Amino acid sequence: MKMDPASLTAQEAAQQIRQGLISSVDLVKACLARIEQTDGAIHAWAHLDPEQALEQASEMDRIKRAGFGIGALHGVPVGLKDIVDTASMPTERGTPIFAGRRPDADAAMVERLRDAGAVIMGKTVTTELAFLNPSHTRNPHDADRTPGGSSSGSAAAVAAHHVPLAVGTQTNGSVIRPASFCGVYGFKPTRGIISRRGILQTSVSLDQVGVFGRSLGDVALLADALGGYDQTDPASFARPRPAMARGAAETAPVEPDFAFFDMPFHDRLASDASEGLEAVMETLGKQATRLQPADTMAGLVAVQATIHEYEICMHLADSFNTHWSQVSPLLQGVVERGRRISKTQYEDALAVKASAEKFFADFFVEFDAIIAPSAAGEAPMSEQGTGDPVFCTLWTLAGLPSVTLPLLVGDNDLPIGVQLIGPAEKDDRLLRTAGWLQNRLAEETA
Amino acid sequence: MKMDPASLTAQEAAQQIRQGLISSVDLVKACLARIEQTDGAIHAWAHLDPEQALEQASEMDRIKRAGFGIGALHGVPVGLKDIVDTASMPTERGTPIFAGRRPDADAAMVERLRDAGAVIMGKTVTTELAFLNPSHTRNPHDADRTPGGSSSGSAAAVAAHHVPLAVGTQTNGSVIRPASFCGVYGFKPTRGIISRRGILQTSVSLDQVGVFGRSLGDVALLADALGGYDQTDPASFARPRPAMARGAAETAPVEPDFAFFDMPFHDRLASDASEGLEAVMETLGKQATRLQPADTMAGLVAVQATIHEYEICMHLADSFNTHWSQVSPLLQGVVERGRRISKTQYEDALAVKASAEKFFADFFVEFDAIIAPSAAGEAPMSEQGTGDPVFCTLWTLAGLPSVTLPLLVGDNDLPIGVQLIGPAEKDDRLLRTAGWLQNRLAEETA
Repeated sequence: MKMDPASLTAQEAAQQIRQGLISSVDLVKACLARIEQTDGAIHAWAHLDPEQALEQASEMDRIKRAGFGIGALHGVPVGLKDIVDTASMPTERGTPIFAGRRPDADAAMVERLRDAGAVIMGKTVTTELAFLNPSHTRNPHDADRTPGGSSSGSAAAVAAHHVPLAVGTQTNGSVIRPASFCGVYGFKPTRGIISRRGILQTSVSLDQVGVFGRSLGDVALLADALGGYDQTDPASFARPRPAMARGAAETAPVEPDFAFFDMPFHDRLASDASEGLEAVMETLGKQATRLQPADTMAGLVAVQATIHEYEICMHLADSFNTHWSQVSPLLQGVVERGRRISKTQYEDALAVKASAEKFFADFFVEFDAIIAPSAAGEAPMSEQGTGDPVFCTLWTLAGLPSVTLPLLVGDNDLPIGVQLIGPAEKDDRLLRTAGWLQNRLAEETA
Repeated sequence: MKMDPASLTAQEAAQQIRQGLISSVDLVKACLARIEQTDGAIHAWAHLDPEQALEQASEMDRIKRAGFGIGALHGVPVGLKDIVDTASMPTERGTPIFAGRRPDADAAMVERLRDAGAVIMGKTVTTELAFLNPSHTRNPHDADRTPGGSSSGSAAAVAAHHVPLAVGTQTNGSVIRPASFCGVYGFKPTRGIISRRGILQTSVSLDQVGVFGRSLGDVALLADALGGYDQTDPASFARPRPAMARGAAETAPVEPDFAFFDMPFHDRLASDASEGLEAVMETLGKQATRLQPADTMAGLVAVQATIHEYEICMHLADSFNTHWSQVSPLLQGVVERGRRISKTQYEDALAVKASAEKFFADFFVEFDAIIAPSAAGEAPMSEQGTGDPVFCTLWTLAGLPSVTLPLLVGDNDLPIGVQLIGPAEKDDRLLRTAGWLQNRLAEETA
């Protein structure tokens, strides 16, 4: 029996296209068929033009046949969160304020994707302005539940085999949390690896690009393709990026050491999530070290909120001023809080953020990775919102690379991720460590 | 005896740095010592700040030691023609009009070089506004002779082992010709592979980026690092680039077929250049086919001039209007000619250019490459100018990839290049064919 191309990983699909075993048109058609079958219930897509996707696929097939350059993602479809500007598609940012908006230019990452030969499949649903107010997207594992947010559609689309890869963004927990809820891999590289030019700015200090896939190699492959220095992004760094796909494919030379922080907010973990993580810790035995966080570390959650809320008010002042009635009550509350934050409070928060970054720069001398929950547990019911991002807050604040692996299953047979966090700019090592953990746990179960 | 690091190719240097056999600081120091020794006679550098170069090298060494990302050109110094904008160095464009000019932003290619881990060594001398009026740079093989232009300093610096790699630009013959005169490899990839953002615009239709190195693999390595889609450059294309270093390293699967056009302007070839090329043709035997060009093909030289002269007047109108007295008599003549070209003449020339591109798109079905002279012969004496670019004109006009190989030696023991031209966007195949030719001729001599 032939495998449905829509269920191939991106690495498999790219290889099969390179070898001429399948065409990009075959692959895109299979993905479109899946979307047709299931998106009526999932609502992962904000914009989808099958004809435009097939045209791109056909062009990639023509390039392949004619012996021209073959990109790392040649002919592989990718979904983009609808806050990533695309000149060829609308970019509506999950709010009526930007309904019908069509950008003049592509985001930097779209240039990188074109160069890699990817097919831009369409735009995936984001929560309102990439914040907390839920979208209508549903979890592919259970239509009564949230896919998480704010990259709701990207996580759901990858989980539902609509596309092998999708791009999201994370200002707090918007990649790792939905990936955990949807049972896929989510990877947020070190801040500054991927340019944010042409992406809705909600927090210049915190916004980061992340990716979704159905294997560790896939998220690394996409991150490699998107990475690159861009002088117009103040977070982008002017030096080489880690070789992420290579890292994901490597075998760890020695058994890695993990740190686990008993954070005060772990009391928000569901019992299945907590027990699952404990079982992983038990398997790791002496390779995992439990640490008590300093009070300042738990205090970083408030620091993140101060920066995020202050900056969203700053960046989106025009939208909030002129379209207040179109802002959700949830976001209105955030904005009202943000407007009460003083410049001094904000600057103090940035200073604490800088010292947290310094702390973590020294921390990883003894440890390969921090192990942590990806989310509070299984995906909550839709009416409860998009879930609690707190388990991602510290790592996002510090700009550290983090990855969630779909390793656990909850009481309702729904996926729960395990999060690993590594040192800045050593994303390759983090992915290598993640591969090791995955294999270790597979041996345990075997 | 240990080899002087300054004489390593870029591929060798990058590998030795990766393996920890030499440091980037060692390499850059060795290159700076060469510059110190010989640039008093050559004048390849318009701007050189040894301290800044060593700081970059030291940073690349730190990154390597600390286990961070290693780029394809990690720690390898590269010279940039002084029309490529650099925010950290002046960019004076070979004219007093722009003396002391310091750009606000880097050119797109500088971003790519930072990502690749290259050390920006400094700025190399260009002729006045990348046109024909000679600079004071001298040919490293004979100080009485021109290095060629307009990328004079880049060609001379690579030939003199000041740097293993340098970047130039070609609007007519400004990479291939100086590479031929200086006895190095010059490679101008297909138009649109490398972004021109942040480079002095002299002709939007014709300006193209090219590279210099001391091996075929080196020019391919640098071109790979610089290539990438950029929506702000109208010539840049939104699809994958050919894998140039891979092409240069490949063995041709069958013996390639070459075409040779008996162009009317070949009467400008010096006898040693003509005889050298004939000897190559003889070695190729049946693999080389002599073709008589249609009259329209020889007419393309005038078409190039019309476009070039019209566009330079358009792009640099402000400079010419406000600084006329600082423009050389040679360039003043060009500008006066350009101003007399009508819009209709210009548009007709663009139409002929488009049909030439179409002609060459079909031409390479039967041939792997066109073989042609790179220049009229050995480097002329300095007082005679920078040499005749006509042997490059057609291929540049059509945007085709072209490479010059330092295969011949003239009557004065000075280098003469052989040029190969390939189909657009098949730069990988062109470089593979060039490698084949090089090996074939080496066997002949052995």
